[in-house]
Amino acid sequence: MLQNFRVLLALPLICTAVFSGNALSAPRATAASAPLVLQAQGSFAVGGTVVRSPGTYELGKAGPDGQTLHGDHARVAYQIPVDPRKLPLVMWHGFGEFSKTWETTPDGREGFQTIFLRRRFPVYLLDQPRRGGAGRSTVAAQIAAEPDEQRWFNMFRLGAWPDFYRGVQFSKDPEALNQFFRQMVPDTGPLDNQVAVDAVSALFHRIGPGILVTHSYSGGLGWQAVMRNPAIRAVVSYEPGSGFVFPEGEVPAAMPSLTGPLAGVAVTMAQFKSLTRIPIVLYYGDNIPTQPGADPGLDNWRVRLAMAKLWVDAVNRHGGDARLVHLPDVGVRGNTHFPFSDLNNLQVADLMQAFLSEKGLD
Amino acid sequence: MLQNFRVLLALPLICTAVFSGNALSAPRATAASAPLVLQAQGSFAVGGTVVRSPGTYELGKAGPDGQTLHGDHARVAYQIPVDPRKLPLVMWHGFGEFSKTWETTPDGREGFQTIFLRRRFPVYLLDQPRRGGAGRSTVAAQIAAEPDEQRWFNMFRLGAWPDFYRGVQFSKDPEALNQFFRQMVPDTGPLDNQVAVDAVSALFHRIGPGILVTHSYSGGLGWQAVMRNPAIRAVVSYEPGSGFVFPEGEVPAAMPSLTGPLAGVAVTMAQFKSLTRIPIVLYYGDNIPTQPGADPGLDNWRVRLAMAKLWVDAVNRHGGDARLVHLPDVGVRGNTHFPFSDLNNLQVADLMQAFLSEKGLD
Repeated sequence: MLQNFRVLLALPLICTAVFSGNALSAPRATAASAPLVLQAQGSFAVGGTVVRSPGTYELGKAGPDGQTLHGDHARVAYQIPVDPRKLPLVMWHGFGEFSKTWETTPDGREGFQTIFLRRRFPVYLLDQPRRGGAGRSTVAAQIAAEPDEQRWFNMFRLGAWPDFYRGVQFSKDPEALNQFFRQMVPDTGPLDNQVAVDAVSALFHRIGPGILVTHSYSGGLGWQAVMRNPAIRAVVSYEPGSGFVFPEGEVPAAMPSLTGPLAGVAVTMAQFKSLTRIPIVLYYGDNIPTQPGADPGLDNWRVRLAMAKLWVDAVNRHGGDARLVHLPDVGVRGNTHFPFSDLNNLQVADLMQAFLSEKGLD
Repeated sequence: MLQNFRVLLALPLICTAVFSGNALSAPRATAASAPLVLQAQGSFAVGGTVVRSPGTYELGKAGPDGQTLHGDHARVAYQIPVDPRKLPLVMWHGFGEFSKTWETTPDGREGFQTIFLRRRFPVYLLDQPRRGGAGRSTVAAQIAAEPDEQRWFNMFRLGAWPDFYRGVQFSKDPEALNQFFRQMVPDTGPLDNQVAVDAVSALFHRIGPGILVTHSYSGGLGWQAVMRNPAIRAVVSYEPGSGFVFPEGEVPAAMPSLTGPLAGVAVTMAQFKSLTRIPIVLYYGDNIPTQPGADPGLDNWRVRLAMAKLWVDAVNRHGGDARLVHLPDVGVRGNTHFPFSDLNNLQVADLMQAFLSEKGLD
């Protein structure tokens, strides 16, 4: 009884906070200080395989004989707001990362997970197979623990170590960089694109139609997932970096860069056509030059942005609806390789939501 | 404006649902169908170290020279309800597991994370260093991918493969077992108790006073954390399995079992005394025999329960407030090694909350 009484007392506070938070914060859906009101939340594994060792399992006997290993699934954590929009957002991290990509930003603000929950989207966060909470792999692996963070500082376009790029949208508080480095995780099995795409397709089989949000390495995997599963109704891709698919005979010449050549990937016309049936938007951040230079982090993204432009052209040439937004072109400056967690990520979220709204997907 | 209008329309629904959910569900705080109302949620890394390779980093040059590796931190995901209770619950998984332990149960119901959020506790979920989302390790590792699940089925006291123990509180839907196996993850670096305790102590330094909830392997690490950090104001330990600490000269004889001998760990009297200053409760599930037998899963827990009883006696002998609850003794039957995610986990949660209430910790 006391329990219930306390909750009743708390009610007016809840309602008032929801009300005033929204009344004050237009045009954004909700202020970060307003309560989050969820219908449900949870997590599950999806997809994957089962390996069985030959022989017979005997109680108390050591060794793998007759035993199983369930692995290669994705881990999914979801939250459903009250009064949700129809299509959920499925957020897929990039290389060396996991679901944390979309959570609290390195400097401690809300990431896309909570920002879009506040805007009433159901949000599903992925850990792809053999990464983070989906660590159980059916194939053995060695983890090197080799120091490599100055290279990532450069590749993720924070700057040229130890200097940040001028005007970069990343906090100069050393704790932000500490958190940023610590959000990386190793692969617990060989990185296998097919295994990853299988698991993500299995997720859409389970939850039905939704919008796929990809980042970097998962950009290319996202195109594969669309070719596999028509439940993906749109793709929002932040800085896709590889795996650009083109119809056979239309693959552009590989593009040399300081980090090696970037090649397109040939698929059948039928496969490619799946990418022309849904709205797609690609966002790229700042500090991406058009001419070759001496900074690998910049030159790496020079060819990726160039290839992305050819890719968007190819999709649209075949009747598709793809758009590339180079953020500085629309006046949004200083973004790193992680626009969704940069200091201006609410502005970046507004752009994404405007796109979804324009396409009738919200 | 449309955005705000929609939220206003949704308000009466939110308030009504919160109200009716609570009005109908006494004595439990909330029904699973009532909305969850959160003040905040997020995630961060805490603790850990930084390794620096000798040499000088040069932009574009391969190899670790002069580069850093931030690793050995814990990952923490937290949620703070509106109108929270004073002390947060910090939940620490066991061997081979990660924060998933406390999330959705294998059969798809709410786990302790959400159950206790509904009861207005702030909840912090840990991934200990070198596990799950805290995968970045400063020490290299090999991951074997060896099939071993029939052994875990037995060790976690679901049954003697392929048979479940009679009356066990685990769903017989094959999907539940599929999910259960897939919630395991490998160590991404050597399992190092000191590294784990350091990171958890760092968490309590950051968040201040709280209640530590441990499971299995983290039970023993939890005693170490209490000896390190006085911000831990109580411990709820589900089936602690090893690392029972005793004052020097009072360590009991090792207990032989089918899974090897179980030994106590000697600490100084000053260290041990920290464990006498806070309320501690230990819960053990069902199917734990008092006599040796042929089933390793049963015999393993026979000695662990016996050692736990000696440990509770030692704490209380030195002026402490420790209690051991063998669930069948209070009429709660069929529990596995994971009582908090078993079919009767709401009952298990009620017991825990009653303990916290009795000790003035809620």
